[in-house]
Amino acid sequence: MHLALYLEAGIHQGGWRHPDSATSGGVDWPLYKKIAKRAEAACLDMLFVADKLSIDDNYGGHFADTVKYRAVARPEPLTLLAALAAVTDRIGLGGTVSSSYSAPFTAARMLANIDHLSGGRAAWNVVTSVSDGEARNHGRATHYAHGERYQRAEEFIDVVRKLWDSHGDDALVRDVASGVHGDPSRLQYVDHRGAHFDVRGPLNIARPPQGHPVLIQAGVSETFIDLAARHAEVVFVVQATLPRARDFYRLIKERAKAFGRDPASIKVLPGIVPIVGVDGREAREKDALLKSLIRPEAGLSFMSASMNHDLSQYPLNAPLPDITERITGSKGRFQYVIQEAVARGMTVAEVGKWYAESLSFFSPVGSPQEVAEQLIDWYQAEACDGFVVLPAYLEEGDDLFLGQVVPLLQQAGVFRQSYPGRTLRDTLGLTTPGSGPGKVARR
Amino acid sequence: MHLALYLEAGIHQGGWRHPDSATSGGVDWPLYKKIAKRAEAACLDMLFVADKLSIDDNYGGHFADTVKYRAVARPEPLTLLAALAAVTDRIGLGGTVSSSYSAPFTAARMLANIDHLSGGRAAWNVVTSVSDGEARNHGRATHYAHGERYQRAEEFIDVVRKLWDSHGDDALVRDVASGVHGDPSRLQYVDHRGAHFDVRGPLNIARPPQGHPVLIQAGVSETFIDLAARHAEVVFVVQATLPRARDFYRLIKERAKAFGRDPASIKVLPGIVPIVGVDGREAREKDALLKSLIRPEAGLSFMSASMNHDLSQYPLNAPLPDITERITGSKGRFQYVIQEAVARGMTVAEVGKWYAESLSFFSPVGSPQEVAEQLIDWYQAEACDGFVVLPAYLEEGDDLFLGQVVPLLQQAGVFRQSYPGRTLRDTLGLTTPGSGPGKVARR
Repeated sequence: MHLALYLEAGIHQGGWRHPDSATSGGVDWPLYKKIAKRAEAACLDMLFVADKLSIDDNYGGHFADTVKYRAVARPEPLTLLAALAAVTDRIGLGGTVSSSYSAPFTAARMLANIDHLSGGRAAWNVVTSVSDGEARNHGRATHYAHGERYQRAEEFIDVVRKLWDSHGDDALVRDVASGVHGDPSRLQYVDHRGAHFDVRGPLNIARPPQGHPVLIQAGVSETFIDLAARHAEVVFVVQATLPRARDFYRLIKERAKAFGRDPASIKVLPGIVPIVGVDGREAREKDALLKSLIRPEAGLSFMSASMNHDLSQYPLNAPLPDITERITGSKGRFQYVIQEAVARGMTVAEVGKWYAESLSFFSPVGSPQEVAEQLIDWYQAEACDGFVVLPAYLEEGDDLFLGQVVPLLQQAGVFRQSYPGRTLRDTLGLTTPGSGPGKVARR
Repeated sequence: MHLALYLEAGIHQGGWRHPDSATSGGVDWPLYKKIAKRAEAACLDMLFVADKLSIDDNYGGHFADTVKYRAVARPEPLTLLAALAAVTDRIGLGGTVSSSYSAPFTAARMLANIDHLSGGRAAWNVVTSVSDGEARNHGRATHYAHGERYQRAEEFIDVVRKLWDSHGDDALVRDVASGVHGDPSRLQYVDHRGAHFDVRGPLNIARPPQGHPVLIQAGVSETFIDLAARHAEVVFVVQATLPRARDFYRLIKERAKAFGRDPASIKVLPGIVPIVGVDGREAREKDALLKSLIRPEAGLSFMSASMNHDLSQYPLNAPLPDITERITGSKGRFQYVIQEAVARGMTVAEVGKWYAESLSFFSPVGSPQEVAEQLIDWYQAEACDGFVVLPAYLEEGDDLFLGQVVPLLQQAGVFRQSYPGRTLRDTLGLTTPGSGPGKVARR
């Protein structure tokens, strides 16, 4: 089983109000550092830092509700991961990069540098971004259309990988006697000219220790599955129930196989928001307390931005209509959320609160034993290769998931007790791409 | 006196061949970390990481000479500074950002995050970039013209500062009881619409601890002086002789005053490449050894890219003609280099070797006492407010500059013996910008 820890102020939109929450709402570096070390002591595969390129302002066309009811400030992922690289030794470091609003040359360099700083532990989560708010921070009035942004994402991945491949492993020969520093035959131009990017290369940093930092992708839509099956090495997915997760798992593994890939080379990790108590009763009380701390606007402002559709136009206490056709942001995920809400006859306010609890991720509630059993069930039912664990809130003290659930997974023999190697590829059991130009065998 | 340490594989193009050089040519994180801690122990103001967005390939229209004779791979500055933030406590962290090939929203966020991670020690060196090679890695066939890129730089600075000002200091009210996380009246849209950038804002990260990370600018041209006198807080400048440095110092301070600024709010730091020996004789031997390790192509390939003009068309052993009019890259700096070379009747090969020694920076050679005296001379003659120290090469062991020259400066009473506060603004004696929207007095 593979486990990633989502590092953010806390995913549960009421989490910051919980008495045990230790986040300030800003960039809590000492806390992040502590949690990163804790996750590494528990042998987790990876830390994961998500991203969004604006403060949500779709709900009502302003940011007031977002700012009022949620933690909106977020650390920038790549600089945070670089700092975490300096204080950890083995755990992977994954972060989000937008293929819509980043330059591939810069992304390739920064990720390569994090891979160097960490000794081969970098991963990147390519997203296409979702909202007009993000577009407006980058010179556009509206976000790219769904199809266009996926084409752009695919080209972005292609360019970044070509840039990493523009240096051979042993390009730096450093012959002090003759004064020859590098071997030009082991570097090559990329000369990429595409629909979205023109990049000549080569990259101006040595080939990353992992060859290519690990590629994560997050999504569920049909367009996404097609892209991920061809390129992703880790898939971060929203699946609220085991049967749905199992169907998705089977589908993406088969699709990868159809593209000629080993199904084991793509790891499927559904997100989970575990609510753990010392016993089941405490867990349910914690869950109820957290639910009581949510304002509907916290979820609705979040959803409006992610859907790129303003939900303030629907009365709070009336049932949510089927608006799946109006989603222009994150389609696959919100088609499910809306359909589920409509099927359950939820009001708009109820949907907002529901979404704000777990962002529609699976949220097992129970004692460490009960939570561990559910995770093992999913894993053994071939519904996943592991999980991205999204804490409801971040605590100063030892949390029950890392402190008690993980040891139970280890005792059950489904989760490792030590790191198998030095790089994230070693930890995930992924092969390392070839050595770049001018050399046949990799060291 | 203020002192910054330039962190790079070593500025002297023969430095990597010196027996004491500890660089591998790649990203030497353990070495950088050691040197950063050493610089902090010596109470230096700041680490400085320069940047370039390509491997130089102007010389002969290919990268072969560059790769063959020089260390070309460079760590990406912002991720390196973030990692350094995690392992240091007091020293400032300055890095280069290109206003030609970066997005202001991303730059503002990353710099704000580094400022948060470091507790207020971030600085940014805005450059306009120099070469067609850099342009070609970012979707353009040629680099922006000189005037255009300076206009773009000014707008870039304006947008980034507006983004930092889009959050008030106390925007995060976090009233757990009422469930109000932030005060929307303390955030504001930027709504910037300019010739080069359209950015709506607000930034999605809390206001940086310094309000604005410190603004560094590097250059000497007339256009540069005009921009720097209005905006820069630190000026990193190439001045090879004391009289020239004094003229420049007077000029830029007067210009700043003319723009209504306190001349003390702009710190002028010429770069220096000190060659220090235990005594004068050892220093001169080291200097001679280093000179003997240079290939002309190392300097000529570097110069060709920085000038954005291919020097391979001039015969190596003939005198360099006056080609100042053909410079389309870094104008101010290379007008001086070329004029000086022509005045001295140097051949093209000699110019290449000369440039490769010190990149035309002042290079004092001598015992710790001799070097310290020269620095004190410059400082007391009002030729500078301090220096950016560019080591010829990086050593594992204690180097003579930090270990012996700095203590002499401290004994002479011109350099501090402890940090005066927590932030880089405290260290540099710069005031902190106001508190952003919705609040009058800064905490």
